Amino acid sequence: MTISTPTLSLQDWLNQCSKQVDAALDTLLPPPTLAPEKLHSAMRYATCNGGKRLRPALVFAAGEMVGANPADLMFVACAVELIHAYSLVHDDLPCMDNDTLRRGKPTVHVQFDEATALLVGDALQTLAFDVLTHPSIQINTSIRLDMIRLLARASGSQGMAGGQAIDLESTGKRLDQTSLAQMHNLKTGALLRASIMLGVLCGGMLDVNTLATIDAFSHTIGLAFQVADDILDATASTATLGKTAGKDAAQDKATYVSLLGLAQAQSYAQTLLTTANTHLAQLGPQNTLRLQQLAELIVNRSS
Amino acid sequence: MTISTPTLSLQDWLNQCSKQVDAALDTLLPPPTLAPEKLHSAMRYATCNGGKRLRPALVFAAGEMVGANPADLMFVACAVELIHAYSLVHDDLPCMDNDTLRRGKPTVHVQFDEATALLVGDALQTLAFDVLTHPSIQINTSIRLDMIRLLARASGSQGMAGGQAIDLESTGKRLDQTSLAQMHNLKTGALLRASIMLGVLCGGMLDVNTLATIDAFSHTIGLAFQVADDILDATASTATLGKTAGKDAAQDKATYVSLLGLAQAQSYAQTLLTTANTHLAQLGPQNTLRLQQLAELIVNRSS
Repeated sequence: MTISTPTLSLQDWLNQCSKQVDAALDTLLPPPTLAPEKLHSAMRYATCNGGKRLRPALVFAAGEMVGANPADLMFVACAVELIHAYSLVHDDLPCMDNDTLRRGKPTVHVQFDEATALLVGDALQTLAFDVLTHPSIQINTSIRLDMIRLLARASGSQGMAGGQAIDLESTGKRLDQTSLAQMHNLKTGALLRASIMLGVLCGGMLDVNTLATIDAFSHTIGLAFQVADDILDATASTATLGKTAGKDAAQDKATYVSLLGLAQAQSYAQTLLTTANTHLAQLGPQNTLRLQQLAELIVNRSS
Repeated sequence: MTISTPTLSLQDWLNQCSKQVDAALDTLLPPPTLAPEKLHSAMRYATCNGGKRLRPALVFAAGEMVGANPADLMFVACAVELIHAYSLVHDDLPCMDNDTLRRGKPTVHVQFDEATALLVGDALQTLAFDVLTHPSIQINTSIRLDMIRLLARASGSQGMAGGQAIDLESTGKRLDQTSLAQMHNLKTGALLRASIMLGVLCGGMLDVNTLATIDAFSHTIGLAFQVADDILDATASTATLGKTAGKDAAQDKATYVSLLGLAQAQSYAQTLLTTANTHLAQLGPQNTLRLQQLAELIVNRSS
């Protein structure tokens, strides 16, 4: 499991990451032939589906910067991706976003059924924490406990799940920009930030100032990710996104586009990218190339 | 947080356990005044509801047997109870058992709404793993990782969630006794067994033979719990149970009562109790009083 090849183009590096994450997830997910077969098949359907693996890429990029062991990074990348996959399955459920399309395919509750989708999300979350306890991981056990806590905090009621709860409550309300940022900071930002911080922790403990700078960078690209997401929802087609486009406007959700207008939202995304790069520059001689490239990708992606 | 008081009657000891677990959960759950308030209120509604706290009692009983630190046991007891609480919230959802009553009160999705109930379950599961990483826990970090893995395995697709999946698939089918036992072994048995094993691990590592005997005991009472549950569902009233009675027959679910008949099921429960006591007797001079009392309670409870 070698990830670090500095000469690769970003696209080749991302393809390599995805391929290796897909292979690792294939090993970590229970085989579809093991009982309960339907649940195990559905867990794979939800996870092994051509996802972009952006969060794993952030884990690798941050981990490479601090010279972490690639094999350790792979477990952590898979744990983060499992949390992300669980959240998508539950978010798509009829009682939540009621979405039927994800990455160009029927969502889990459409392909299987609602009860199975509920259990798939539950079991993928459990597996994420299981993976972080894997006996092959070489990271110091005390740091490992910190990492499990960090992932839990980023995912729970004061992280991702909490952001989703605020999103639900605010549908149809006119949020101001501060409230919108707070909501997204939890809903999508928390797990993106955790991906970077977990990658960094794989390399051991860093000094407080460096950690704070990395966290400021993570916070900024977490926000930039959401601004770009809102722009894409308003401008891209369902075919390009692989999920239902125009959903935010249809559901009368507050977005950066509804709040600022399209042109202002696009300009805000570029400003955030500049800020993110300023943070990276403060890290001095560290190898921040991949993080820089990922920040740009997050803002300027087309799907 | 002192739990060990050998002179207390079982009922007083259980009351003391419940009270202390309730107080600890109150500290560990986010305050209802913290955003997102609705989610945090609903998490408390789902958890602080007069539950019997049987799994925490098993953690304490097993932990006392091996002289574990009561403060450590409390965190572990809360983690197990949080997993149990999450599973009840999700099991009650319309797409699953569609139940409206739990412990004599409206279920979470009835009291709040489905989306909130989904997030409550998700966030309670996350909190369970968070709690096991609590910095105040004194247990060796390597054993702690083993404990997190054990809880994850007991809860996930090859444990509790897997049992629920098998239960769903088997509704309306004529299961034989072996398949029924396998299903329950996962659905309810896995977390009961984990409670005992986690309590034991709080005291450090034991020799393989002792662990195997304790596991055999745990396996037996896990099964006995379900046989007793099936008997109660068929014989007790909704008022006594605090949840809808007669549900199994109404949903045409395979149970020990439908399979063996009531009298045979009752006699099977007593046989399992005898077997459980035989296992405990093999532990020799250990203080197994509370485990013995809990085994009897599990079989002969009235709700």
